[in-house]
Amino acid sequence: MSVSLELQSANRMFEGWHKKYRHRSSALNCEMTFSIYLPPQVDEGIKVPVVYWLSGLTCTDDNFSHKAGAQRWAAELGLALVIPDTSPRGEGVADDPEGAYDMGLGAGFYINATQAPWNSHYNMYDYIVSELPALVEDVFPVSDQRAISGHSMGGHGALMIALKNSDRYSSVSAFAPIVNPTLCPWGEKVFGNYLGDDRSEWQQYDTVELINAGYGKGLPILVDQGSADSFLEQQLLTDNLIAAAQQQKLDAEVRYCEGYDHSYFFMASFIEQHLRFHAQFLA
Amino acid sequence: MSVSLELQSANRMFEGWHKKYRHRSSALNCEMTFSIYLPPQVDEGIKVPVVYWLSGLTCTDDNFSHKAGAQRWAAELGLALVIPDTSPRGEGVADDPEGAYDMGLGAGFYINATQAPWNSHYNMYDYIVSELPALVEDVFPVSDQRAISGHSMGGHGALMIALKNSDRYSSVSAFAPIVNPTLCPWGEKVFGNYLGDDRSEWQQYDTVELINAGYGKGLPILVDQGSADSFLEQQLLTDNLIAAAQQQKLDAEVRYCEGYDHSYFFMASFIEQHLRFHAQFLA
Repeated sequence: MSVSLELQSANRMFEGWHKKYRHRSSALNCEMTFSIYLPPQVDEGIKVPVVYWLSGLTCTDDNFSHKAGAQRWAAELGLALVIPDTSPRGEGVADDPEGAYDMGLGAGFYINATQAPWNSHYNMYDYIVSELPALVEDVFPVSDQRAISGHSMGGHGALMIALKNSDRYSSVSAFAPIVNPTLCPWGEKVFGNYLGDDRSEWQQYDTVELINAGYGKGLPILVDQGSADSFLEQQLLTDNLIAAAQQQKLDAEVRYCEGYDHSYFFMASFIEQHLRFHAQFLA
Repeated sequence: MSVSLELQSANRMFEGWHKKYRHRSSALNCEMTFSIYLPPQVDEGIKVPVVYWLSGLTCTDDNFSHKAGAQRWAAELGLALVIPDTSPRGEGVADDPEGAYDMGLGAGFYINATQAPWNSHYNMYDYIVSELPALVEDVFPVSDQRAISGHSMGGHGALMIALKNSDRYSSVSAFAPIVNPTLCPWGEKVFGNYLGDDRSEWQQYDTVELINAGYGKGLPILVDQGSADSFLEQQLLTDNLIAAAQQQKLDAEVRYCEGYDHSYFFMASFIEQHLRFHAQFLA
């Protein structure tokens, strides 16, 4: 595999390195940016496992890099963090015609679009599941042991991707995930545009539908949801996840966190527990 | 004391609360914003000590609130964090005539200006030393035990203020502080404008000059400086601090951190050690 990576920045952090790269993505047909944190253990010649982090609507890789405090625990636990962007970017990449925040740029939803104009770039599913891990494992001192986590739209992405690829991820976690996008306004808007009107096409990307269809048996799952999250009732539908996971007897812990909201203040508060959770299952 | 505080936001964080307030400052003659983190220990009726954090050029209270990860350790150690803005703000507040980042808005330098037009609002020294602590100790469940820390311009502010008021602060620390502003371009520009041409007026706000004049005996001091900091040689002049502290036999630990730069990635890496340092001396 031949890849061309352009280093954008490198910052020493917790005796490891936080680095930002640009590269050409073939899945997305555009230039993409991602960040990676390499913990100090790589200096000892150790190939470390990777936790992939999928961010929420409007984010880039920077939000998690700057605000979650995750590198502190990645350094202690010997984990690399890989933090992709949330959509294709750049000239010629379609955006919401009214410039809304919840479709188009910053809102890739981690699915492969089938409808024009979205289908020429919006293949975030292939990028996250295949292209980016292949690149990362080719270039950096990391193993092929992977976990995946994310927030909100990225929590949807993490759960949905891990359920469909439980051979590729040893565990999954999420903060305030959109768990049932086929039944919430954010999901209905984007799936209708990216995938078309046939709702049966949507189900392959819906966490609750995937669980109901039998996916996720034996996969360790941890979800934290703030009880004061203003998106909880209309968009996130956490109780639907709890019901489906119980019915299918999944290995899922779903916690309501009293008084916490949808912000990075919430994620910073629990990221340590999430990384310790993943570390248990990563070789 | 009667104060009017307007709550701007409140976020649950590490079982405590991160809150942002607006209030009228008499020292600065304008409306000001600050943030406060209250750790979970206040729920037990405990009055907690306070670590004041002074930010660097161009910052508001948000940079440290979002990026340093300090609340994790404040929650564990039972410390409140108070994070003021870096200058007066609003209509009628003078700014650099050319809009430069290093004077005027975002660049109060924590001193009392004597020269027009700066002297009608730029009294950050009085605000930080007197007005803000009086307000905080009147309104919030905190004790009168204080420590102070800061970054770059705020590291200058923290050291200078603690040296001049060692009865009011039990310890001081700094990240990449401007330690000898009378001898560096940032300090010469701002002191010349805020204080006038008489350089003898500048010395009262210069850490190295204050140490040479005998201030700081018995005050615990911790300073971290990244060795890869691009401002080190011309602006920060850390070696001048080391020499003065050694000559005066101060209780100062000044550490060069190999490979670290001037960013929040650096501060996030060492904030735990700084808060543990302060906690030792706070009742």
